[in-house]
Amino acid sequence: MAAKPKKLIIDTDPGIDDAMAIFLALRSPEVEVIGLTTIYGNVYTTLATRNALHLLEIAGRTDIPVAEGSHVTITKGTKLRIADFVHGADGLGNQNFPPPNSKPIEQSAADFLIEQANLYPGEVTVVALGPLTNIALAIEQDPSFVKKIGQVVLLGGSFSVNGNVNPAAEANIFGDPDAADIVFTSGADILAVGINVTHQVILTDADRDKLAQSGGKFAQYLCRILEVYFAYHHEAYSMRGVYLHDPTAILAAINPSLITYTEGVVRVQTTGITRGLTILYNMQKRYGEVSEWCDKPAVKVAVTVDAHAVIQLVMDRLMDS
Amino acid sequence: MAAKPKKLIIDTDPGIDDAMAIFLALRSPEVEVIGLTTIYGNVYTTLATRNALHLLEIAGRTDIPVAEGSHVTITKGTKLRIADFVHGADGLGNQNFPPPNSKPIEQSAADFLIEQANLYPGEVTVVALGPLTNIALAIEQDPSFVKKIGQVVLLGGSFSVNGNVNPAAEANIFGDPDAADIVFTSGADILAVGINVTHQVILTDADRDKLAQSGGKFAQYLCRILEVYFAYHHEAYSMRGVYLHDPTAILAAINPSLITYTEGVVRVQTTGITRGLTILYNMQKRYGEVSEWCDKPAVKVAVTVDAHAVIQLVMDRLMDS
Repeated sequence: MAAKPKKLIIDTDPGIDDAMAIFLALRSPEVEVIGLTTIYGNVYTTLATRNALHLLEIAGRTDIPVAEGSHVTITKGTKLRIADFVHGADGLGNQNFPPPNSKPIEQSAADFLIEQANLYPGEVTVVALGPLTNIALAIEQDPSFVKKIGQVVLLGGSFSVNGNVNPAAEANIFGDPDAADIVFTSGADILAVGINVTHQVILTDADRDKLAQSGGKFAQYLCRILEVYFAYHHEAYSMRGVYLHDPTAILAAINPSLITYTEGVVRVQTTGITRGLTILYNMQKRYGEVSEWCDKPAVKVAVTVDAHAVIQLVMDRLMDS
Repeated sequence: MAAKPKKLIIDTDPGIDDAMAIFLALRSPEVEVIGLTTIYGNVYTTLATRNALHLLEIAGRTDIPVAEGSHVTITKGTKLRIADFVHGADGLGNQNFPPPNSKPIEQSAADFLIEQANLYPGEVTVVALGPLTNIALAIEQDPSFVKKIGQVVLLGGSFSVNGNVNPAAEANIFGDPDAADIVFTSGADILAVGINVTHQVILTDADRDKLAQSGGKFAQYLCRILEVYFAYHHEAYSMRGVYLHDPTAILAAINPSLITYTEGVVRVQTTGITRGLTILYNMQKRYGEVSEWCDKPAVKVAVTVDAHAVIQLVMDRLMDS
């Protein structure tokens, strides 16, 4: 008998690589996607919701509920940083897709997360692909959420490397540093997949050509929207290829053996020039002084990834459909 | 004909490894120590001055002037962090040495630094072994200082690794983050040697035994004061040996081929939980947004060290005297 599929909620701001991650999850028998929750980041939340509904329509999976998330950071009042220059003004490669026919559910993302964690205690994995506002709101609204949720796999942070918003900060953590610090110190089972890992997973021009030549409907769709994403990477990183941030995070949730991780306490700087910076305490030194890392629960932080296997999985699951 | 020795000013907070660094410089024909300036850090500034004078008396080099530096951080009002638990209450291994007979010069450290840079434009290397207050004051008092000083080799920062005060910050930068940010962004020729490098240079128990067995007066003196330093390392790092922070920085100034470096813009976080953190922008990405790293001059940051050669030099120069 096959193992029971792992229940997945994807918290997402689609986003080109979000689209790829969502499709991968839908094509993976190891998991059952029980809902999408939306957040600002690559686009504003309203557009993220529209895109989430649209992507489920493309996939023929309008049975999956979409719960709209927060439109503002957890502290409110913070100006949002929207990465439309990475994903296009519509978040999906400027393809001018028609509006979806389906609608989000009435529940907020945080309420939906809490409800599902209560329904299936210990069984739900949240894969957070955007700023962590919704997860932090769920933690604040229901202190038992951190024990009831199975695991939070989050794409975020730039551990020991430069960020992608500025030299200090990675985009998702920068998007809501206060929320991220709440999540990291919450005591939930957290696995952070940072750009120190996802920058090793590169979809090349040649990979894209192979996708384009396949008959797969997901492959065809993604090749349309990927153009903007390739152009951004060429401009910003002088590379011929794109980082598969969200697909790596989702595959780490689907198949944990694709990565290795270390454990330690992560805190987020919430002010000043390094706002959004993540600092992992690697437990190698005993500090004499009390610090902000003391007495906080440890989390898991990905350190290596089998990049070849990730790309192989991406290709296999998206081409053959 | 031998090359003209490089003029060195050592800005120091002695400190056990400061003592070793000062003795190494005095024993190195490649450099001429033209002055010591003092700063708080391992001890308060008053005691740093006393110890600097004492060390020059031990070395028989009371001809070298000592200029007392700042007693407070550049922004003032910041509570000083004094690492007496690393170096002993007296900064020199709790050996109860008699007070020195000599006295500091009348000039402040900053005035002395400016004067010497004016006297020998482009020829003076400052090796900064403590918080960077004196150097920042010299920069603020005389904007031409950054062009007149030859190089500033500083022991400071924890690039891509945890700090030694807390997971974010290294002690010297933490001691005066505002001063450090002034120095890093000043445009002077800066070489930063951080604990990511100095943690590779370890003086072992066996090395200490060899020093103790030698007849060298510097070796004998240092073995007396090293005990406290070894005990601290055992407690904090579970190691049987000590990191040679200051000796590595001074030897990097004396013989630049002992290290390799990268170049980039370094900024210092001056507030919040990662106060004192150093972030190097490695220039690998072109950021679309303006950041605090934009339009700032690049500095050199050490990335590797020939640890074996450093230890060999330390042993050779301290034993044979």
